Amino acid sequence: MRFFSDNAAAVHPRVLDALGQANTLDTAYDGDRWSARLDDAFGALFGTEVAVLWVPTGTAANCLALGALCPPWGGVICHRDAHIQNDEAGAPEFYTHGAKLMLADGTGAKLTPEGIAAVADAVVDDVHRVQPHAVSITNATEYGLSYRADEVAAIGALCRDRGWGLHMDGARFTNAVAFTGADPADLTWRAGVDALSFGFVKNGGMSAEALVLFRPDLARETKRRRKRAGLLLSKGRYLAAQLLAMLEDGLWLQLGHDANARARVLAAAAGGRLVHPVEANELFLRATPAEAAALRAQGFDFYDWAPGEVRLVTAWDTDEAAVAKLADAIGAL
Amino acid sequence: MRFFSDNAAAVHPRVLDALGQANTLDTAYDGDRWSARLDDAFGALFGTEVAVLWVPTGTAANCLALGALCPPWGGVICHRDAHIQNDEAGAPEFYTHGAKLMLADGTGAKLTPEGIAAVADAVVDDVHRVQPHAVSITNATEYGLSYRADEVAAIGALCRDRGWGLHMDGARFTNAVAFTGADPADLTWRAGVDALSFGFVKNGGMSAEALVLFRPDLARETKRRRKRAGLLLSKGRYLAAQLLAMLEDGLWLQLGHDANARARVLAAAAGGRLVHPVEANELFLRATPAEAAALRAQGFDFYDWAPGEVRLVTAWDTDEAAVAKLADAIGAL
Amino acid sequence: MRFFSDNAAAVHPRVLDALGQANTLDTAYDGDRWSARLDDAFGALFGTEVAVLWVPTGTAANCLALGALCPPWGGVICHRDAHIQNDEAGAPEFYTHGAKLMLADGTGAKLTPEGIAAVADAVVDDVHRVQPHAVSITNATEYGLSYRADEVAAIGALCRDRGWGLHMDGARFTNAVAFTGADPADLTWRAGVDALSFGFVKNGGMSAEALVLFRPDLARETKRRRKRAGLLLSKGRYLAAQLLAMLEDGLWLQLGHDANARARVLAAAAGGRLVHPVEANELFLRATPAEAAALRAQGFDFYDWAPGEVRLVTAWDTDEAAVAKLADAIGAL
Amino acid sequence: MRFFSDNAAAVHPRVLDALGQANTLDTAYDGDRWSARLDDAFGALFGTEVAVLWVPTGTAANCLALGALCPPWGGVICHRDAHIQNDEAGAPEFYTHGAKLMLADGTGAKLTPEGIAAVADAVVDDVHRVQPHAVSITNATEYGLSYRADEVAAIGALCRDRGWGLHMDGARFTNAVAFTGADPADLTWRAGVDALSFGFVKNGGMSAEALVLFRPDLARETKRRRKRAGLLLSKGRYLAAQLLAMLEDGLWLQLGHDANARARVLAAAAGGRLVHPVEANELFLRATPAEAAALRAQGFDFYDWAPGEVRLVTAWDTDEAAVAKLADAIGAL
Repeated sequence: MRFFSDNAAAVHPRVLDALGQANTLDTAYDGDRWSARLDDAFGALFGTEVAVLWVPTGTAANCLALGALCPPWGGVICHRDAHIQNDEAGAPEFYTHGAKLMLADGTGAKLTPEGIAAVADAVVDDVHRVQPHAVSITNATEYGLSYRADEVAAIGALCRDRGWGLHMDGARFTNAVAFTGADPADLTWRAGVDALSFGFVKNGGMSAEALVLFRPDLARETKRRRKRAGLLLSKGRYLAAQLLAMLEDGLWLQLGHDANARARVLAAAAGGRLVHPVEANELFLRATPAEAAALRAQGFDFYDWAPGEVRLVTAWDTDEAAVAKLADAIGAL
Repeated sequence: MRFFSDNAAAVHPRVLDALGQANTLDTAYDGDRWSARLDDAFGALFGTEVAVLWVPTGTAANCLALGALCPPWGGVICHRDAHIQNDEAGAPEFYTHGAKLMLADGTGAKLTPEGIAAVADAVVDDVHRVQPHAVSITNATEYGLSYRADEVAAIGALCRDRGWGLHMDGARFTNAVAFTGADPADLTWRAGVDALSFGFVKNGGMSAEALVLFRPDLARETKRRRKRAGLLLSKGRYLAAQLLAMLEDGLWLQLGHDANARARVLAAAAGGRLVHPVEANELFLRATPAEAAALRAQGFDFYDWAPGEVRLVTAWDTDEAAVAKLADAIGAL
Repeated sequence: MRFFSDNAAAVHPRVLDALGQANTLDTAYDGDRWSARLDDAFGALFGTEVAVLWVPTGTAANCLALGALCPPWGGVICHRDAHIQNDEAGAPEFYTHGAKLMLADGTGAKLTPEGIAAVADAVVDDVHRVQPHAVSITNATEYGLSYRADEVAAIGALCRDRGWGLHMDGARFTNAVAFTGADPADLTWRAGVDALSFGFVKNGGMSAEALVLFRPDLARETKRRRKRAGLLLSKGRYLAAQLLAMLEDGLWLQLGHDANARARVLAAAAGGRLVHPVEANELFLRATPAEAAALRAQGFDFYDWAPGEVRLVTAWDTDEAAVAKLADAIGAL
Repeated sequence: MRFFSDNAAAVHPRVLDALGQANTLDTAYDGDRWSARLDDAFGALFGTEVAVLWVPTGTAANCLALGALCPPWGGVICHRDAHIQNDEAGAPEFYTHGAKLMLADGTGAKLTPEGIAAVADAVVDDVHRVQPHAVSITNATEYGLSYRADEVAAIGALCRDRGWGLHMDGARFTNAVAFTGADPADLTWRAGVDALSFGFVKNGGMSAEALVLFRPDLARETKRRRKRAGLLLSKGRYLAAQLLAMLEDGLWLQLGHDANARARVLAAAAGGRLVHPVEANELFLRATPAEAAALRAQGFDFYDWAPGEVRLVTAWDTDEAAVAKLADAIGAL
């Protein structure tokens, strides 16, 4: 019974079906009729004009966005526990040609205008110091917290004041939307977000993430850079079709609700063991090594996050019976 | 009736089936059981120990290989019509951090030891000149010619003498194997090739190419660089499964034979119009603008390669009736 | 008797004196009073507002300029014999983060609008091809030819039409000005040049070249990049003082005239042996190996440029008696 | 009366004289007879075989060293207050092609094996995390502390155990040697240092620092990279001559003693105001804004390091009368 990550969850049948339906000759790269529909489909969801690029990984989406928002000699302010800092093997530095990640603090891996300003204000504006050019926030965060629209907007206002770009790593954007019930527009462009890495793979997709550019003027060069990074698949229709299948009838959001609901069941059982509020599909629990071993002995698989702390992740397809069993097992610790 | 490229051909049903069969929970990235089988499966095909990385594009395979074989301050000798020089948007420079492509000449986009040496010998070995560190050849070439094993071996011997690496861009390696009937080992590692970009997407795959490292010692850092490039998909099993489906029962080679056979039909009809011998699945034909227009008026789609020259490409799934019609139409010009 | 290069000529006494005069405490980096005068001093020479950065090498000047005019995913059109292509160890690729040099032809290493357009027009504007963003010309050229103002202006007009930047590698700009008698403004910004690498080291300087930006808006980021490249010397006043000493009373131009005059003496002696017209301080002579050996036996040192061809370079301080002797020796061959 | 930095101190007369003596024709780049003597001269000082490259800045020396010790996908552990992290405008990331600086803690900007291990041990060894490849320490540190030989050796032992390189930023190495009285060999290669940025500019040089490679095998590629970075001055003899003048008769060490002695005078006056022990030529003093203003009103110039803290720096040429006045003024606060 796997609660290790949502990274490897199965692909939703409707996504898989979409691949079969796309299995006909069309134009290569992103010249096909599925890819051609992406801007409109996402534009409708967000209620504004957007330019959308499919990419095969969230790392690619994040780092193309950072490259568009920050020059090689600039800096990107992010949380010190951000995925781009810790889990992308230096991809931000690769894609930006050596920009510096500038690490800020914040509870639950959430940034605040104050935390961001503290980093920025310590930087003298001279040629010796790398200057911040952008901020990157993760929603939901690495600890499963969801930004509210006004929290994003406060950061967006700071970015606008300073002339910085704002990127949102939305590997679990869906879970944040599902939890907060917010309009996706309010969580993003209306709050000042310039580029969103909109994740689908953790949520039932196979190999397609969407880089949503709320500044369509960034698309032209970013498309060149996608190609230059070896990310422009020959048969893009199989990526675009996944994204369209996800958007159709709100499948993406339904799956996010499903994953979150499973997490809530576990959260209720965990009670005071929770290290962070559960606002998406991740739980961080205090558990002694003996307790962790006891859970594993019952067949539950999960991640040892830190000494005395484990991480549980649910996905759209996590077996509900397994969830119930795990909830019982946690309660019985 | 599309003879534009093999880039956008449909996915073979057995490949598509393999995706469905892989649609079960497993470990993320390349920790799954499909990915774990790749080294052995390709090792069996090549008769030697190899390390294999799936990647989503041929550009990625090529450029990870170049990065493994050439430092940022080095050069890679390739044909001046090579895909890495002309069609990858500067990806080689991106992945190598600025290595220089050093352009050699050769008939039909084929390199020879003489052509390579002519480039290298013009470079004084001092700190002012970029020094060659590797050679990259394309098999089949950009003009549809296939290297024979002894031709590769002659280049391999030169590389060994000079201490250079040797990369083969095998986007259409299958077509070359099918045409020459050579043992894949003889075309590659036995001839001195260090890294092969083994293409499957043009040959019925969906989104998976194989970077085959005949020097497994290169794998450790290359896997890090794959991740750093945003190429490490979360659900790698769907790429590995494509490659395994292709290798099973020699499907890859059968599809290559199928594509080549269709090209031979057209070649026979083209006769003296052929600019290059047809040794794979590409044809380059002399055709006046009026002739090209006449073919298009009959519903044939293809690429205007150069003034007075068109390119036709067949694929595993090119409709045989369409091939026959096009052969007739060419004959009737 | 050294005619090998002007690279290693002695430093002019007035430049050396200037170092002593600057040997007093001042502000570090480029905050000193010598550095502060550069914009005005060069602005007066060129008759327009400029921003000037001292740098220790011509390579640094060239590559900072290229980095300012071309993004990592773009291309720079230059002559295939250009110094930036052949003699800078990949520095252009390093500074631009992997931009591609696109090689054009032209007699005597001179570019023409036609030669440039031939390169550019072969590039389809899609994401697969690296697109030109700038042109770099060398004046005087690698073969000692000097552009006339109208020749530069024709290239400048092409660049403006295409939206490209124009860089001039002026390692021997002084010699070109001295030869043509042109107003420096007419050879540069009035002709559309955006950035000039204005060389002083070959002309009697010690360790200071000037990067002259005719688009002062480029200065802010270029100064950051100078620092990021490790080029911002702590005691910049010793570089600025060299440049100011050179500009004072037109010393730079006088020294250029002196070097050119010596070359003219040799050119007169060389007559029909000249491979290129002598329009600066370099001579390329046809000479058999035996003839070259004969000259060397008489104590003359020079560079074997190509089979049957030698290069002679004069400098501001080349001994006039040695020039006379060499002229006689050439005449006597 | 300037106590702002040693960065802009005057050039020592013997260094200036050396420039004049080098003002004769010789071979370009580093082919001259001064440059040719560097390996031996520094080898004699350190009692071992070394390869020495002159460079015009400490940033260049540091970053060439980091590039030699760390690949683009690796990390360098340094103190969070290190110059390479805060004051080099991203040059480490530029020269290493995007390696990550991994920030460790330590009193007075000194690293310890424990502080280094704490950073390293938090990094799981998988492809998602940037792995440390090198450590960089600064001696004397940013806060004017000097490592003892055994402290460096303890770090060196850790690096050897882990297979990492060890770099020492010795912008004020001289001051550390002067303070500790240690054999330069014991502070460097005998303690496991692979590369030393040996600073001369802050200590009476004009424009030459020495990158001392205790692993001469690193020299070949590092010299290529020096050229590729635009750092290979045409007339290298003027840099080499500075370094040789500094080494002659131990001038470098005498000047370091002179600077340190001036700092000791101030330290004695400062007493309990000192934030850090004074072990080189820098002092960090607690001073209220009013106190700082009072000192400035008396003509003393210095740096406001942090709220309530000022930095004073002495140099080889700091006027002793000014030192005495400042000591009195501090005492009178």
